[in-house]
Amino acid sequence: MASREQHDRMANAIRFLSMDAVEKANSGHPGLPMGMADVATVLFTKYLKFDAANPTWADRDRFILSAGHGSMLLYSLLYLTGYPDMTIEEIENFRQLGSRTAGHPEYGFAPGIETTTGPLGQGLANSVGFALAERHLNAEFGDALVDHHTYVIAGDGCLMEGVSQEAISLAGHLKLNKLIVFWDDNSISIDGAVNLSDSTDQCARFAASGWHTIRIDGHDPEAIGRAIEEAKASDRPTLIAAKTIIGFGAPTKAGTKAVHGSALGKEEIAGAREKLNWSYPPFEIPSDILDAWREAGVRGASVREKWEGTQSDKRAEFDRRMRGELLPDFSKTIADYKRKLAADKPKVATRKSSEMALEVINGFLPETIGGSADLTPSNNTKTSQLHSIKPGEYGGRYVHFGIREFGMGAALNGLTLHGGVIAYGGTFFCFSDYARPAMRLASLMGLRSLFVMTHDSIGLGEDGPTHQPVEHLAAVRAIPNHYVFRPADATEAAESWQKAIESTKTPSTLVLTRQNLRAVRLEYTDENLTARGAYELAAAEGGEAKVSIFASGSEVEIALDAKKILEGEGTPTRVVSVPCFELFEEQDKAYRESVLGNAPVRVGVEAAIRLGWDRFIGSDGAFIGMTGFGASAPAEELYKYFGITAEAVADAARERVKNGVPQGEDARQIPDSEPARPHP
Amino acid sequence: MASREQHDRMANAIRFLSMDAVEKANSGHPGLPMGMADVATVLFTKYLKFDAANPTWADRDRFILSAGHGSMLLYSLLYLTGYPDMTIEEIENFRQLGSRTAGHPEYGFAPGIETTTGPLGQGLANSVGFALAERHLNAEFGDALVDHHTYVIAGDGCLMEGVSQEAISLAGHLKLNKLIVFWDDNSISIDGAVNLSDSTDQCARFAASGWHTIRIDGHDPEAIGRAIEEAKASDRPTLIAAKTIIGFGAPTKAGTKAVHGSALGKEEIAGAREKLNWSYPPFEIPSDILDAWREAGVRGASVREKWEGTQSDKRAEFDRRMRGELLPDFSKTIADYKRKLAADKPKVATRKSSEMALEVINGFLPETIGGSADLTPSNNTKTSQLHSIKPGEYGGRYVHFGIREFGMGAALNGLTLHGGVIAYGGTFFCFSDYARPAMRLASLMGLRSLFVMTHDSIGLGEDGPTHQPVEHLAAVRAIPNHYVFRPADATEAAESWQKAIESTKTPSTLVLTRQNLRAVRLEYTDENLTARGAYELAAAEGGEAKVSIFASGSEVEIALDAKKILEGEGTPTRVVSVPCFELFEEQDKAYRESVLGNAPVRVGVEAAIRLGWDRFIGSDGAFIGMTGFGASAPAEELYKYFGITAEAVADAARERVKNGVPQGEDARQIPDSEPARPHP
Repeated sequence: MASREQHDRMANAIRFLSMDAVEKANSGHPGLPMGMADVATVLFTKYLKFDAANPTWADRDRFILSAGHGSMLLYSLLYLTGYPDMTIEEIENFRQLGSRTAGHPEYGFAPGIETTTGPLGQGLANSVGFALAERHLNAEFGDALVDHHTYVIAGDGCLMEGVSQEAISLAGHLKLNKLIVFWDDNSISIDGAVNLSDSTDQCARFAASGWHTIRIDGHDPEAIGRAIEEAKASDRPTLIAAKTIIGFGAPTKAGTKAVHGSALGKEEIAGAREKLNWSYPPFEIPSDILDAWREAGVRGASVREKWEGTQSDKRAEFDRRMRGELLPDFSKTIADYKRKLAADKPKVATRKSSEMALEVINGFLPETIGGSADLTPSNNTKTSQLHSIKPGEYGGRYVHFGIREFGMGAALNGLTLHGGVIAYGGTFFCFSDYARPAMRLASLMGLRSLFVMTHDSIGLGEDGPTHQPVEHLAAVRAIPNHYVFRPADATEAAESWQKAIESTKTPSTLVLTRQNLRAVRLEYTDENLTARGAYELAAAEGGEAKVSIFASGSEVEIALDAKKILEGEGTPTRVVSVPCFELFEEQDKAYRESVLGNAPVRVGVEAAIRLGWDRFIGSDGAFIGMTGFGASAPAEELYKYFGITAEAVADAARERVKNGVPQGEDARQIPDSEPARPHP
Repeated sequence: MASREQHDRMANAIRFLSMDAVEKANSGHPGLPMGMADVATVLFTKYLKFDAANPTWADRDRFILSAGHGSMLLYSLLYLTGYPDMTIEEIENFRQLGSRTAGHPEYGFAPGIETTTGPLGQGLANSVGFALAERHLNAEFGDALVDHHTYVIAGDGCLMEGVSQEAISLAGHLKLNKLIVFWDDNSISIDGAVNLSDSTDQCARFAASGWHTIRIDGHDPEAIGRAIEEAKASDRPTLIAAKTIIGFGAPTKAGTKAVHGSALGKEEIAGAREKLNWSYPPFEIPSDILDAWREAGVRGASVREKWEGTQSDKRAEFDRRMRGELLPDFSKTIADYKRKLAADKPKVATRKSSEMALEVINGFLPETIGGSADLTPSNNTKTSQLHSIKPGEYGGRYVHFGIREFGMGAALNGLTLHGGVIAYGGTFFCFSDYARPAMRLASLMGLRSLFVMTHDSIGLGEDGPTHQPVEHLAAVRAIPNHYVFRPADATEAAESWQKAIESTKTPSTLVLTRQNLRAVRLEYTDENLTARGAYELAAAEGGEAKVSIFASGSEVEIALDAKKILEGEGTPTRVVSVPCFELFEEQDKAYRESVLGNAPVRVGVEAAIRLGWDRFIGSDGAFIGMTGFGASAPAEELYKYFGITAEAVADAARERVKNGVPQGEDARQIPDSEPARPHP
């Protein structure tokens, strides 16, 4: 064991890299890296299973800095242990444009950054997915290939965020005993002392959700080591409450909020150098200490090498899954299923046709894991192959996430980041609002996390406006790098699932109806038309199109009915199905122009607000949809009440064909109907 | 005390109204009302302080059905106790268009519905605001005017949602001992047994956050009464864990998930009638039982009458606050402040000018309560008059909400719903994603909840894309009935606050910069121009405008600089400031047309995605903004990197003046720059 002095000097290396980098950037958070340097030093030099030179080793322990503002802790560790790409220049360029050392750790920016953190609580919630993926793969591939821990550093902020409760109650329930969380118990938050706003007994709280808990002095390396060993021996996930001094080593600011989130200043740093007996200039680590750190970085090399040679009849399959490669006949499997759909023309809700597609996909791809936030019978997410994952029994492929939409979203991200699985989870689309912060991070990281969102409009009926999405399509479409699929029938649902699964760098949200929809794709096409984002579903008949109707999901059949009305009156009308705005934007200009077409009258129809539809119909187009919240009543009545009908579409088109398209403010839609409120 | 038999019959009245209403609607949730009927009967007949005929009595106890899907419990209670408007016809019209008995309880639909619930966890989180408002007003107005309890019924779903942790940890910390929560501990959720997904010891969890806890048999009226008395005597908030049988009384479905969320069916209901010895037809309550209930409904009448006569030198002020009326000179106060700003022309961040406005407002209106989710020094939400509310000391006007954005949002709604206060809370705009579900409910309910969102763009700089809003302006603007203000300088910030506070039926979000902005409103105007939503800030000089530039917030000064460039080249250019999209839509057509103007070239600039801006610039307008996520770097560099500069605006305008406005797909903006990622 390293001497206490060496430990201290190694920990101080983290402290000074952090102080100096924040000082140079004149921006950042030195408090956490300085406070947690001892914990991190013990963990990385003695316990964490990793091989810095091979950061993608599948069986490495995962280290997650949930308190992402302390990013310099992670960057320091990656530099000191010798991870690729994390040079001293990167440390010196902390928080500068184009550096790998962003203000908060960003997945993909440098090896060793396992997830993007910063939005508090989410790293902790990701870790449930990481730990679950490990146990799940272990159940199938055995200890020789999969046997690693997930370590987390969480701060007071992570624990105050509600998502932490969703995470710890799920992890505790599932007895994910290879999950070990350090809580940086420094009693300080931005407003001041934590006890300004909180007096929770965190250990008691974690224990209430089935965790093992240990309290230690976070500056005592021996206690840290003992705690890790105790945690590894536990049959439950473990919280190690590490009492620390934020900004440990800063002579006047340590233990205060002043050290949390800004540069310490020259004088304070000079004082720290004196106090900690650190005589080296900024960004210089003495060679004996750097050597000791680099040794820690190769500690796991021999274990990894041995692991690389592990023979198993499941090895090839394991490697395929960890590479994230689909089985070769995936597209053929979908094509066969689409042929069947073209023949059967089922009239089902898209939540049902999503289930039908999943039945095919889950049967073919053994790497899928599904789940729901306690809406399994409504989201239709559990297919015949999927058995429930239970505490201690991780071989199943279905997660009862509980009523925890945000925790589910973050766990999906963790499952995806771990690798080896393709994960999806369901809830009502209205509660995408709850899961949204995780959906955003999936987009930012470029993860194939899959969100199944059913009950996608007023079509859900009687549950009323609290459960009826109106603005959610626009709001999720607003997130960059996120595919929002709203399929119109079973074929589009199958195509949506295919494209979602094939898109390894973009998360997808499937937005699905509760109510039945008739088939609108009546013939088999080899091409995945949904993957085009929008396409002409029905050409105009009887001449050049005078009207183009654009619609998505449940409103496509309304558009087709409107076309029938209009063509019955001699107005050639085409219908464009728009299952995915984002994919349409990825098409080339010629394709986009052909889909938008030249019809003088354009009408959009979607049971949601107009926002975003001007892209298809222009500012002067007619839009049939919602202008406010929905109401509680049977779905069919609501469609009539809010005027989302084929007749309304035809009326709007007819008016414009007859009188021309109004310009400017005259083209603005005036809400037809107020929400259905009782008389006051 | 009523006999057990009478209690049972009174409780059964709830059960059968609920069963029969759900059956008639063929939709709804009978399980909770049947399971919690005993608790509700004891509470409403013996403890709840209310006078059904006077449902807005300021000192009534509040009853909040957090598990809003059990709405028939609430509707039954309101009907049985004789609340105005809740007729038997409304019960028979459960979940029908235009009825007061929506699928989930909707605030404003009938007296006695204290808040809209359904999105799980939020009623519980509202209750923290209710209970805090009570204690705060009590501190100022005394026991004679303010002395009431807040009772909540929460289900397993409410407790699994993360927001519940934020709520209970804040309530426990603040020792809100007049908050009493019943947990309907029925062990059933939609997927099946709760133990499919959770094994938390809820009592231990609440105790860890400082709650008193009591476990009872939820079908034992005496135990229920004793628990309420014990809770009322506690110096801490209390959780009463009521063990119940979901769907109590249903002969074959009770205690199973089958009774949670659908009609029981004729046979099951017939069986329940037999089992519970209830021989009356649907919707008929025997007169002795209805009489007993109606008696309970007038139980509080004499107390209320006595309360109405309470004399106090603060009575008039209390009544004013509860009516939600502003002090008469509010607008004059703002006008005086605006005069000062026009003279001073401060160059400050809008988060700072928001604070300056709040300094004036909080000094003038004693009913404001502010707070922040642990970002007080960043959000600038604490003015000189506001002292912190502390456990047991509720006279302050500032809440340290902790790192609990969603809990804060829901508590703001509860504060607002209680009445007597005007409540605002702050966080980073990026974390509006966390608070969003509460922001939506504020909009749906039509509440004056006020959200202060600072660090509103890439202008926050080094914290990077996890903290940089890009899609959030579009996403919050998408919510119906929600004002999103993005002021450009201190005058617009003052006007935003004025309009937000004067808008009693619409929540507002103030979106504010971290970086300094120069004054753009150089002269005093009596009119609140910001309340127009958009207005011409600078007219074209040197001829009729050839270019209109539309901008909000920090980009208005960029627009003004671009105008200078263009006019220097002989191109008359006008600038329109657009602080609030929603208010612009409320203006009349002539005003809107005058603001949009007739310049052939239109350019929009906002450091966010384009979504929504076509409304001002048309589909073929040029937009200078973001197309993806931001990056970590100093703010000025980011503006340059992402090309959001006066030069870029001028370039786009010049190109269009010279070559004409491109049409169709040629007008689509091609992203100029990818996000700043390090080289792979």
